[in-house]
Amino acid sequence: MDEIARTPEPPYYVTIFTSLRTPGDNGYDEMAASMAKLSSEQPGYLGMESAREGVGLTLCYWRDLESIKSWRQHVDHAQARRLGREQWYTEYRVRIARVEREYGA
Amino acid sequence: MDEIARTPEPPYYVTIFTSLRTPGDNGYDEMAASMAKLSSEQPGYLGMESAREGVGLTLCYWRDLESIKSWRQHVDHAQARRLGREQWYTEYRVRIARVEREYGA
Repeated sequence: MDEIARTPEPPYYVTIFTSLRTPGDNGYDEMAASMAKLSSEQPGYLGMESAREGVGLTLCYWRDLESIKSWRQHVDHAQARRLGREQWYTEYRVRIARVEREYGA
Repeated sequence: MDEIARTPEPPYYVTIFTSLRTPGDNGYDEMAASMAKLSSEQPGYLGMESAREGVGLTLCYWRDLESIKSWRQHVDHAQARRLGREQWYTEYRVRIARVEREYGA
């Protein structure tokens, strides 16, 4: 991605997904694009930023914890996470954080 | 970077630095390496994850807001931020967030 997310005034939430990939694609790119689109259509979605360079970082911004919970329970997302655990990632961490301050230029 | 940060049980804090670079190096790589080393030596530092792919994402994990504030006041860091604003970034955002949950595999 090559844009900085336009998020509102804090507070809001962020899910930080840090991962290390297995070799090869194995359907990953298609699923990643599909999940990026689907997540952007969920209630409470505020934006996304991602980059992979060795480690992969995907940050998704959300209005509140309810929005994160709802997206986590989406059946297609649950299926994608299962495939991620089984096929695409050798290791990953999910961190859920409350954004308290934002500034920039 | 190609490692996932080993952070403790939440709560702890994260600074999320999202940026778009100007063309060319202009001393950036050397300063980035220097700041990565120096930040890792600060009190309260818990780890770092970064990747650039279009957008640049640098996540730095800290024990508390005091640690973030101290690092922000470090004279070398202030100088690096000034050069960043003047030379290296066309745009950036800093977000400070409190990590409330972490899990993974």
